[in-house]
Amino acid sequence: MTDPIRPTDDEARALARGLLRDARHAALGVTDPETGLPFVSRVAVGHDGPDALLLISSLSGHTRALDADPGASLLLGEPGPKGDPLTHPRLTLQGRVTPADKATLKDAWLRDHPKTALYYDFADFRMMRLVASRVFLNGGFGKAYEMTREDLAG
Amino acid sequence: MTDPIRPTDDEARALARGLLRDARHAALGVTDPETGLPFVSRVAVGHDGPDALLLISSLSGHTRALDADPGASLLLGEPGPKGDPLTHPRLTLQGRVTPADKATLKDAWLRDHPKTALYYDFADFRMMRLVASRVFLNGGFGKAYEMTREDLAG
Repeated sequence: MTDPIRPTDDEARALARGLLRDARHAALGVTDPETGLPFVSRVAVGHDGPDALLLISSLSGHTRALDADPGASLLLGEPGPKGDPLTHPRLTLQGRVTPADKATLKDAWLRDHPKTALYYDFADFRMMRLVASRVFLNGGFGKAYEMTREDLAG
Repeated sequence: MTDPIRPTDDEARALARGLLRDARHAALGVTDPETGLPFVSRVAVGHDGPDALLLISSLSGHTRALDADPGASLLLGEPGPKGDPLTHPRLTLQGRVTPADKATLKDAWLRDHPKTALYYDFADFRMMRLVASRVFLNGGFGKAYEMTREDLAG
């Protein structure tokens, strides 16, 4: 039941890439500038190569937090309705967010997130890129891996 | 598409209590002691009145982080397989964790989490209580509420 770190192999890399590729939403962790405590909320996510993309509103609390401190973490990989959710694979990215080019990324994003076409062009919506400095894959109890951003590329 | 804060009413309180009562797992945000950045992972959760309970292993990264800094946040309320996940209601708790009495809470916990009976009594598993100092309910776009721990009681 422990979480020893296993050596990263191609199977683990493929699992991690699949979790990043398939994610449409995720839990975003930021530091709340008012309290200094963590704050977790749900955001729409996509990816551009090894980087996660976030489409977030300037009017929301998480965006204000990121303006104050770009440090962030994302939990990707939603459990299905069946089985033990704690054995379902999930991926944690940790790093800092930077602005991304909303216009250039628009077509690829809307292919994967057609419903966001309703508000994609709203001025208060921004695209941000999370460049991961640490990557953790949890493939279920006892199957933990620590990876790099490079493991998510390709 | 904005997130204005609405006045808390009984309907919002009932929705928030339901999200807390029904949650069996959640996204936990902590501060990574090695990097100072947020770290989000999945944990088993329950509740004891208005407080969320976490069953976590001492061997895991989030537990080591909480030992260094008890500040934490939980995102409760998992989207189903249908519909837009960003319109699904969710609840964010923010506060600090304290140790809870694993023996006293055992029967109630195992009723809701029967699969954890396999490891509940393992010495490295601890029960922790998140006492929320801030509570945020997002009932979907444009339906945001800021609540108190008292709104979750009863």
